[in-house]
Amino acid sequence: MADSCNIGVDTLGSETPTSEIIHGALDFAQIQTDCAITFVGRKDELQQAKDFGHSVVVCPDSVSHYESLVGVLRHNRSSSMKVGLELLSTGEIDGFVSTGDTAALMALSRQVLPMLPSFDRPAIIKRFDGRQQPYWMLDLGANVVRKKSWLLQFAQMGSAYATAVGSVARPRVSLLNIGSEARKGPQILRETASDLSKTANLNFVGFVEADRLFDGSSDVVVTDGFSGNVALKSIEGATRIAHHFIDQELHTAGLNESEVARSVAQEVREKLNAQAYNGASLIGLNGVVVKSHGRTDRIGIGAALQLAREEIQARVPEHLRRDR
Amino acid sequence: MADSCNIGVDTLGSETPTSEIIHGALDFAQIQTDCAITFVGRKDELQQAKDFGHSVVVCPDSVSHYESLVGVLRHNRSSSMKVGLELLSTGEIDGFVSTGDTAALMALSRQVLPMLPSFDRPAIIKRFDGRQQPYWMLDLGANVVRKKSWLLQFAQMGSAYATAVGSVARPRVSLLNIGSEARKGPQILRETASDLSKTANLNFVGFVEADRLFDGSSDVVVTDGFSGNVALKSIEGATRIAHHFIDQELHTAGLNESEVARSVAQEVREKLNAQAYNGASLIGLNGVVVKSHGRTDRIGIGAALQLAREEIQARVPEHLRRDR
Repeated sequence: MADSCNIGVDTLGSETPTSEIIHGALDFAQIQTDCAITFVGRKDELQQAKDFGHSVVVCPDSVSHYESLVGVLRHNRSSSMKVGLELLSTGEIDGFVSTGDTAALMALSRQVLPMLPSFDRPAIIKRFDGRQQPYWMLDLGANVVRKKSWLLQFAQMGSAYATAVGSVARPRVSLLNIGSEARKGPQILRETASDLSKTANLNFVGFVEADRLFDGSSDVVVTDGFSGNVALKSIEGATRIAHHFIDQELHTAGLNESEVARSVAQEVREKLNAQAYNGASLIGLNGVVVKSHGRTDRIGIGAALQLAREEIQARVPEHLRRDR
Repeated sequence: MADSCNIGVDTLGSETPTSEIIHGALDFAQIQTDCAITFVGRKDELQQAKDFGHSVVVCPDSVSHYESLVGVLRHNRSSSMKVGLELLSTGEIDGFVSTGDTAALMALSRQVLPMLPSFDRPAIIKRFDGRQQPYWMLDLGANVVRKKSWLLQFAQMGSAYATAVGSVARPRVSLLNIGSEARKGPQILRETASDLSKTANLNFVGFVEADRLFDGSSDVVVTDGFSGNVALKSIEGATRIAHHFIDQELHTAGLNESEVARSVAQEVREKLNAQAYNGASLIGLNGVVVKSHGRTDRIGIGAALQLAREEIQARVPEHLRRDR
């Protein structure tokens, strides 16, 4: 079967319990029967996955959240994250999903996988559901420094990604800034905007402010990893406080027991959750790497696997090769 | 009366209609009878305010949203924003509220008012309502560059402000970063954190990530104006999309007509709105300057005036003088 794929899953190294990761992946494999799963983790915890006939790669160590990056890279013993990335680099799996530490995933990916030509650094990209249509934002935290050359590359990556995964023919690319007029914000962003507007293969539409992200004015939002991570996590935090207010008000109104009110609250919660907790991808590398939220559940794992599947089927790394 | 005050209101220069600004201020003055209002704006639009016995300073020009900052500063004719700030600097009013352009308000404030000693630049600070308690974040966009010396000053300003306005005895101060461990984020933030932890008069509690802002782990969140503005506006955007989902689900569930469901949605909306649309303050200056959201309504104007009143009564500039 041409479109069948094998996705590796890191079962260690995050606040998500291994059992939840395994359940999410098993549920996913039952629905997406064109996908095989390769579980990477501790032998005793993977028996259930083996019983279901899935591949298991035993690897006792995880990347510790508290380990230094130098430690992660120099580690003699192999972590589940590193082993998974190596399986990806040798082609034994077609994509890799991890809930582990973002900085470690970034560092190890760069160590194990080659970068695609014309790109210096990977970026983290994620789909958000706007009012009318989706949009993609990058970088969400792979890099902490703002450089013009990287921003220009992220624009290229993001545009190619939106076309490959989102079937957007000529993605409208914008640059996140703290004002929409050309004179606003730091000089580096004004210079980047000027360069982007002269880039022939990009459909650059100007600056966007973070309160307009969901309004549908652009398909791809480019920013540095620090600002992008702040935006992503602010959206998460606001989402959680919205849940809190909804629950509080339902309680105050005595609607806790009302099935209809509960179901409305649940629907809103799920829509808001999808904004925050679905997987994000590390792109610019020659391989499909999906970073799931560190505090997720089986639903989030399923969403991350689905994203990996879409990227594999859309052949994202090939689309991002600028010399294609 | 010792605590009576006179607050100037800029009625021009934003997307908020002048009539809405005037209504909000008149409503406020009816409730807070210890406050006189001085309206700054066009003569024909201020007749109603005059009829109610309020002071009116006629001034036909507004700072245009599209004017360059150099233009704003050099302008021969005086804008309502500049006239208001001059009234503040001469002590004719005790505080000033404007819905106008943030960058213009920042530039004109620095031109017209003196900075308090030990502070190089004003910062924008705002109160957010967390799950259990409020917190304050600064800078939200007065400055677009990240400098260690400014961040250290913002920490001092924010801590003094939370004590003056929020009665927090020993405010827990944190630094916004994209990870909570000491090794995370850009070098400048790690250096700033190191300096803050050695500052005797501050209660520095470390890094905070944007998804934890509402969790109550700190009273004051310090960040550069770019990141702070991205966080603020991301919270606004997420809030608006939460409204959208609530409305959509109520509609789908056929609950539009249910009074109870509508009232719950309305309560949630108001709580969420308060996060985004209440006023923010420009601090570090010798004067109370409140920046209301550019797209607000009479409720938002009332909230901004209330904030100015609190700052005047708490004598914020005096508290921020480090040589007090």
